[in-house]
Amino acid sequence: MERQRVRAILQAIQSRRLGVEQGLRRLRFLPFEDLTFAKIDHHRHLRRGFPEVVYGEGKTAAQIGSIMRSFRRRVEPVLVTRVSRETFHRVRREHGRASYHSPARAITLLPSRWRPGARPGVTVIAAGTSDIPVAEEAALMAHLMGNKPIKIYDVGVAGLHRLLAYRETLLRSRVLVVVAGMEGALPSVVAGLVDAPVIAVPTSVGYGTSFKGISALLTMLNSCSGGVTVVNIDNGFAAGLSAGLINRVRDDSD
Amino acid sequence: MERQRVRAILQAIQSRRLGVEQGLRRLRFLPFEDLTFAKIDHHRHLRRGFPEVVYGEGKTAAQIGSIMRSFRRRVEPVLVTRVSRETFHRVRREHGRASYHSPARAITLLPSRWRPGARPGVTVIAAGTSDIPVAEEAALMAHLMGNKPIKIYDVGVAGLHRLLAYRETLLRSRVLVVVAGMEGALPSVVAGLVDAPVIAVPTSVGYGTSFKGISALLTMLNSCSGGVTVVNIDNGFAAGLSAGLINRVRDDSD
Amino acid sequence: MERQRVRAILQAIQSRRLGVEQGLRRLRFLPFEDLTFAKIDHHRHLRRGFPEVVYGEGKTAAQIGSIMRSFRRRVEPVLVTRVSRETFHRVRREHGRASYHSPARAITLLPSRWRPGARPGVTVIAAGTSDIPVAEEAALMAHLMGNKPIKIYDVGVAGLHRLLAYRETLLRSRVLVVVAGMEGALPSVVAGLVDAPVIAVPTSVGYGTSFKGISALLTMLNSCSGGVTVVNIDNGFAAGLSAGLINRVRDDSD
Amino acid sequence: MERQRVRAILQAIQSRRLGVEQGLRRLRFLPFEDLTFAKIDHHRHLRRGFPEVVYGEGKTAAQIGSIMRSFRRRVEPVLVTRVSRETFHRVRREHGRASYHSPARAITLLPSRWRPGARPGVTVIAAGTSDIPVAEEAALMAHLMGNKPIKIYDVGVAGLHRLLAYRETLLRSRVLVVVAGMEGALPSVVAGLVDAPVIAVPTSVGYGTSFKGISALLTMLNSCSGGVTVVNIDNGFAAGLSAGLINRVRDDSD
Amino acid sequence: MERQRVRAILQAIQSRRLGVEQGLRRLRFLPFEDLTFAKIDHHRHLRRGFPEVVYGEGKTAAQIGSIMRSFRRRVEPVLVTRVSRETFHRVRREHGRASYHSPARAITLLPSRWRPGARPGVTVIAAGTSDIPVAEEAALMAHLMGNKPIKIYDVGVAGLHRLLAYRETLLRSRVLVVVAGMEGALPSVVAGLVDAPVIAVPTSVGYGTSFKGISALLTMLNSCSGGVTVVNIDNGFAAGLSAGLINRVRDDSD
Amino acid sequence: MERQRVRAILQAIQSRRLGVEQGLRRLRFLPFEDLTFAKIDHHRHLRRGFPEVVYGEGKTAAQIGSIMRSFRRRVEPVLVTRVSRETFHRVRREHGRASYHSPARAITLLPSRWRPGARPGVTVIAAGTSDIPVAEEAALMAHLMGNKPIKIYDVGVAGLHRLLAYRETLLRSRVLVVVAGMEGALPSVVAGLVDAPVIAVPTSVGYGTSFKGISALLTMLNSCSGGVTVVNIDNGFAAGLSAGLINRVRDDSD
Amino acid sequence: MERQRVRAILQAIQSRRLGVEQGLRRLRFLPFEDLTFAKIDHHRHLRRGFPEVVYGEGKTAAQIGSIMRSFRRRVEPVLVTRVSRETFHRVRREHGRASYHSPARAITLLPSRWRPGARPGVTVIAAGTSDIPVAEEAALMAHLMGNKPIKIYDVGVAGLHRLLAYRETLLRSRVLVVVAGMEGALPSVVAGLVDAPVIAVPTSVGYGTSFKGISALLTMLNSCSGGVTVVNIDNGFAAGLSAGLINRVRDDSD
Amino acid sequence: MERQRVRAILQAIQSRRLGVEQGLRRLRFLPFEDLTFAKIDHHRHLRRGFPEVVYGEGKTAAQIGSIMRSFRRRVEPVLVTRVSRETFHRVRREHGRASYHSPARAITLLPSRWRPGARPGVTVIAAGTSDIPVAEEAALMAHLMGNKPIKIYDVGVAGLHRLLAYRETLLRSRVLVVVAGMEGALPSVVAGLVDAPVIAVPTSVGYGTSFKGISALLTMLNSCSGGVTVVNIDNGFAAGLSAGLINRVRDDSD
Repeated sequence: MERQRVRAILQAIQSRRLGVEQGLRRLRFLPFEDLTFAKIDHHRHLRRGFPEVVYGEGKTAAQIGSIMRSFRRRVEPVLVTRVSRETFHRVRREHGRASYHSPARAITLLPSRWRPGARPGVTVIAAGTSDIPVAEEAALMAHLMGNKPIKIYDVGVAGLHRLLAYRETLLRSRVLVVVAGMEGALPSVVAGLVDAPVIAVPTSVGYGTSFKGISALLTMLNSCSGGVTVVNIDNGFAAGLSAGLINRVRDDSD
Repeated sequence: MERQRVRAILQAIQSRRLGVEQGLRRLRFLPFEDLTFAKIDHHRHLRRGFPEVVYGEGKTAAQIGSIMRSFRRRVEPVLVTRVSRETFHRVRREHGRASYHSPARAITLLPSRWRPGARPGVTVIAAGTSDIPVAEEAALMAHLMGNKPIKIYDVGVAGLHRLLAYRETLLRSRVLVVVAGMEGALPSVVAGLVDAPVIAVPTSVGYGTSFKGISALLTMLNSCSGGVTVVNIDNGFAAGLSAGLINRVRDDSD
Repeated sequence: MERQRVRAILQAIQSRRLGVEQGLRRLRFLPFEDLTFAKIDHHRHLRRGFPEVVYGEGKTAAQIGSIMRSFRRRVEPVLVTRVSRETFHRVRREHGRASYHSPARAITLLPSRWRPGARPGVTVIAAGTSDIPVAEEAALMAHLMGNKPIKIYDVGVAGLHRLLAYRETLLRSRVLVVVAGMEGALPSVVAGLVDAPVIAVPTSVGYGTSFKGISALLTMLNSCSGGVTVVNIDNGFAAGLSAGLINRVRDDSD
Repeated sequence: MERQRVRAILQAIQSRRLGVEQGLRRLRFLPFEDLTFAKIDHHRHLRRGFPEVVYGEGKTAAQIGSIMRSFRRRVEPVLVTRVSRETFHRVRREHGRASYHSPARAITLLPSRWRPGARPGVTVIAAGTSDIPVAEEAALMAHLMGNKPIKIYDVGVAGLHRLLAYRETLLRSRVLVVVAGMEGALPSVVAGLVDAPVIAVPTSVGYGTSFKGISALLTMLNSCSGGVTVVNIDNGFAAGLSAGLINRVRDDSD
Repeated sequence: MERQRVRAILQAIQSRRLGVEQGLRRLRFLPFEDLTFAKIDHHRHLRRGFPEVVYGEGKTAAQIGSIMRSFRRRVEPVLVTRVSRETFHRVRREHGRASYHSPARAITLLPSRWRPGARPGVTVIAAGTSDIPVAEEAALMAHLMGNKPIKIYDVGVAGLHRLLAYRETLLRSRVLVVVAGMEGALPSVVAGLVDAPVIAVPTSVGYGTSFKGISALLTMLNSCSGGVTVVNIDNGFAAGLSAGLINRVRDDSD
Repeated sequence: MERQRVRAILQAIQSRRLGVEQGLRRLRFLPFEDLTFAKIDHHRHLRRGFPEVVYGEGKTAAQIGSIMRSFRRRVEPVLVTRVSRETFHRVRREHGRASYHSPARAITLLPSRWRPGARPGVTVIAAGTSDIPVAEEAALMAHLMGNKPIKIYDVGVAGLHRLLAYRETLLRSRVLVVVAGMEGALPSVVAGLVDAPVIAVPTSVGYGTSFKGISALLTMLNSCSGGVTVVNIDNGFAAGLSAGLINRVRDDSD
Repeated sequence: MERQRVRAILQAIQSRRLGVEQGLRRLRFLPFEDLTFAKIDHHRHLRRGFPEVVYGEGKTAAQIGSIMRSFRRRVEPVLVTRVSRETFHRVRREHGRASYHSPARAITLLPSRWRPGARPGVTVIAAGTSDIPVAEEAALMAHLMGNKPIKIYDVGVAGLHRLLAYRETLLRSRVLVVVAGMEGALPSVVAGLVDAPVIAVPTSVGYGTSFKGISALLTMLNSCSGGVTVVNIDNGFAAGLSAGLINRVRDDSD
Repeated sequence: MERQRVRAILQAIQSRRLGVEQGLRRLRFLPFEDLTFAKIDHHRHLRRGFPEVVYGEGKTAAQIGSIMRSFRRRVEPVLVTRVSRETFHRVRREHGRASYHSPARAITLLPSRWRPGARPGVTVIAAGTSDIPVAEEAALMAHLMGNKPIKIYDVGVAGLHRLLAYRETLLRSRVLVVVAGMEGALPSVVAGLVDAPVIAVPTSVGYGTSFKGISALLTMLNSCSGGVTVVNIDNGFAAGLSAGLINRVRDDSD
């Protein structure tokens, strides 16, 4: 709409029905977002190939189904996080092509022409078995952005030899997502072994003074190893998204 | 500058050196802020008659003097908060017309044609004598926005009769700034007595579990009296600004 | 009752059964509230046209019904916040004229001669769709105080163009209620665009370090934009009440 | 048992089978508590006439019944706090003489020769209706210690005139328990009106930044009125016990 | 002044220049505080024999001197807390009769006819030597209210035998002030030994997780021994005042 | 596997198919964990005789059963903590030799040749009856490590004589686990009576400002008695493990 | 040294003085780090071209000088953060080639053959002028890793038009470091405008409830815009390091 | 004195001036501490050979000197923690045999017949160089208790190979004190490598969200490695004392 209004102003100037100064003044009062941002926004989505992400916690199957319907015309994959299998079964009645990712507790709905991610470089690490759902959410998000993440689970600092066995895989990674609850020390140790950026994800796994993830969060923020940045507690999705953005950097140079 | 660029585009369209669609495309990539926001911004300042505010804490006299110099060409008053008298004396060497407001610990520099505020309706209340500097900062800010605030100090809840003596003044107020440290109960009591909006300002006055104002802040946020909103600890300036905006509302209807 | 006692004292003075000084002494020991406050209190209610507000959370339908009954003789509207539709259905058996406001999760019971608010100037903004119930509570409260609030929803800072599209509406507002969870940055951005008072409402929307609204609350208290004041987490009602008080200011000048 | 051992030592000394110095040495290694504390402890219970108090939250009816059984031989009343009426009904099957105190959510089991408390001087005040259960627990505990507390409820600071109507009752009190949630300002206001000790009880009533009573607790700890001391959140029982101890002080002078 | 206005109204009624109902109406609009509270306030001071207390921290000798001057005409003792000996020396130039209490870091100025407190019953206990200044402040305040407190210092829970040596003194106390920093366990232990009210004072003594007294405060609030109430961190003055109020209770029965 | 690779390299050197320097270079790139850590790890398990511990909270009977199955071939006992009796009954269908420890809420599965611990020296103390489950978890863990712990329960600081009755037992202990909720003062008192290391375990028992064990935790960390170290809230298992390690120290000297 | 020991073992095998199995066993007990990690570590340093970073706060000029001396033989640049100009002047007496970076408050000592970074793609943004030192520290670190960062300062959310003017620069960035204190909302707004990873740095700029950066930190962790990761408060160095690692990713593909 | 009173009672019984039952009754009212605890206390000191420890922070040289003087007649060493070298120099004027331990910032005064500790088994580890003073305090305390601690410094988790180089030393330790600031992950890693008890000491080293050691403390409390117990922030002395107690356990079996 706004574009029409700007075009009309420019045409009036072209046909001399409007002076340059008058046109200038009118333009100043136009809502500018359509001139600029809306377009950029559109542009970004096309370039990104980003999945649409729906935070599923607390939403009913009906609500999720309805949101997914509104994305149908899009060409990007849809990711619904934090949903139970029960919710999925009800959602699938309408969206027959949706799939459930059990460890990540997530639904995906992929466009027909969508091809699975194959870009190497993202490694997702989980300290304990209870941290796996958050790690899987990160891996799934990265996967939907075109990556094929390597997953290394149950390698907490209480038994260093388990982690060290993967040393070469770690060194080949371009970006690492490291997920840990309780004391959250794993990202520091990993970052000390590699020279790639590490995205640390604290989880709410633990009890007592773990304070539902705050202890792990603080550990990660205070990491004495360089190259560690942190996301919100249990926010696997955000870590996967950032890892996807980072691993895309080199492609942009093409 | 940007205005020049837009003007050039419009002139090119007018002279048919540029097509309408081409012009449309070029406009989209211009930094738009000058088209729209800068002007609005300028406009806002004219209508507001807002003082320029400089947060003085931690700044040297030289830094403050230099910032004040950059405002000289403006027509709005300048307010520098949280400065010592010593700093003021050094600042005055360059800015001879600056004045010091001892209780508010603030410097003002007023344009020559500036007339003191006279609009009634703002009342500033302080619970204890230690809260007065914050209250004075609020009152000064409101004053620079055209108000003549009434000040009621040392009327804490430990001796209700002191506050109740001002009952009629309270009822005549259009907006009240209530400043209190320690347990911060005064805004609740005041709001229970009036039917005007109350802006509560917690102060860092107190010790132990006053936690430098957090106790008072929580009290105010949990006020069971209607009509209380809250600003940051010790932020007299913000309270005065909001009170000024609120008391201006009715004038806008003219 | 107290009035009777004062009258008796005055009559005793009039009939010289009591000396002036004795009467003076007796008056000092009377409970004074009936002399003064009770009346003022009554007066305030008449002038305010305030709704009676019942905090519904944790109350049974029977309790709510009983409280509403006690308000029946009043002429003000009754607002019950935070009630489920199920509770409403049970409440309606007794209070047939009650209505349910689904997005605000509130019941209203309006006096027969009550006319819907029409005063312009209040704008209620919500950052995300999960923040809407709190925003609706604010809007409903303002509405019951005589306002016709404009609502702008789903304009969070992650996509600025959505907010900027409403720039003119923002500029025409006399007071804005801005509701946001998670990082709570929207009130700062809005306040930077307008020159009216902004009431910020943090919501408990979010997870992990959102700490059920504390993160948003701190963001709002630390806003670097002038004119922002804050209410308790999820307290839409308080924000609507303060907005109603602020938007009434100019009417008082009549 | 220990008494037997000491007696044996003394008899051995008396009969010269043991020297004084040897006896001295043996005595040093005896567990001393029976010599001293156990007796004192017994003594204290007799003098105190204290109720036995059982914290009922989280205990089953069977557990409560069993604990009450163990107290049966005692002459003191038994108080079980924080129990539902359902639990009481099951408890009563065994303890037919137990009674339920609905507003305090407590069970009492009184010895047959127990006479209700009649000592005046304790006043229990609650700010809002939601604070009443905690206030009732305090009043019940004080009652079981021999007092007849006066109760003043729903006199929060949002409407001061309600509290001021009880001014004379307040002044006649020897000790006041003041119960308040949300901003918790009532104890400060009450303490400013009286010259008796005030025991402040924060309650978990409120939401958002009330932090389940922490806001009220901080308010009370920072009270600027003299004579306020504080107990744990929702701890009506502790307040009633301290009030009972304080109001007993003067009797001890007999 | 107000008294004059009320007297005038009563005289007009007496002389029939004013009707009873008219007089009634006029009285309702008088500021009532002079009618009632001011007098009560005065009354309270006379009965209480309370010292005037000045919080000295952060005040200059000049400020303290000036406040003390304003109290000169009073008959109550003046107590200035938290002042250094240096400040005292400067204050004494003007107030020659002032004394310095070194361990309490306080100044007193006693009226000429003041007699030292002699009432027994208050015991002040300090866990460690670093807690003594706070304990001394409490003892001094109680002393100025007519008490002769017994002081027991350096009896922390790390060496129970030190405390137990004072068992009989503890049992003879009518009210105990127990001051402790670090883990703050002493009030619980003391309250388990006595049947008198215990006022617990947390101090900021400690480091690391003592959090400047918060650890001790929490310990005291959670005391499992009955009869413990708590004041703010380092607030010896408040504890002494409450102890004074409690120990006065029995005198009131005269 | 790795061992095979190293052996192959060494054989190649022996047979001179590979030079020493080349072998050196190849060894550097082998995963080293099998060379060193895996073996050590195995070694540690043999020496330790440690039980395998499964954190049962939030795990289904099926999950627990499956984990226990994987340990079957081991010679160490298996301990599953924080499981209900219901879960145990379902687990027992598969693992018929499993036993349930009701007070500790734990399952054990002992190897057939396992002999109950008999080493003296560990004492486990609980302040209140609600702290017993945590204490039992500690005692059970210590027992599975070869100890025969002495248990002393319900000896909180509110009645010191109960604790002092066990003085001799305390003095004979080589390491003490002291479990307490609420104010958590018991470890300080115990440590003041003994000269053995004390492991303090805060529990989440309490309400209000006990903050689910934080208050007790802080008390313990700030203990003024020497020799106290602390574990996480409710972490009986960790305390038992550390006590087991400490009480084993002297055996190592054999 | 270790290498010597391994070589000796291999030579013994080669010369058949040692059997293969014996050699295998000996190797297992060697400190392995020299076999593997030390080399890797060395390797990493060579590839990284990382500056050696010294945290200067609290260190004397002598200490800093001595640490710098130990790095002299290295080929990497040395960065000393958080040092005053005074300290620098004293350090320069020994290290004549050291330079001071005033806005970043940092010292650098560059190897003679070092060439300034020129890689484009890193953008460093600061919300307010007080955030500039932290931003400069980030920019300097990125610079020392081979980048030529673009700096955009004083573009806080209170005046969006200032930020929007740099929209094209933002879109061209490969990684953005966004530094903000107070409410910390800028990273969310920036991340909503770009599709590159954003590293958010909270600063301790602010007062009252900014809690020395905690408010900004929480805002950033809760960002509703995708692609934001966070580092510790004021940790410009860590952000610059991560940005350097991210912007290097694509080079690695060569 | 008490001993005299008990002796007198026993003599009266021996000489039949007092009956056994009368003597029993009298004994019950004696202060018992002299009978029992005082002796035990003395006994403990003799057996322990504990140093007397003085917390030096905030104490003047005069105060420290005076406390040391009172210990002179004792046979135990004296340890004064947290003192500057300046203070030491002044203390030495009186106590010529005192020594200063620079890295631990401590003074010791050893009895002439004192022999340096030689018992092996205690290992003290520090993550970073800034943690060394706390580690040295722990080592010094353990040394004064008869141990010869091994020290391993600067082996933080950012470079695991540094720690792993000491693997054999770690395995030979009987008790390990592990000191770390910032993220505090080192104790978890160490405990995963050994089968001896680990005492973790968080330090206040760090900035921002290290919260002066709270982050490290939480990490340590939440350690997923078994056998870790924790002391207060910076409390090297407490860790050394506990390590000394633990390492003494086996000697007691003699």
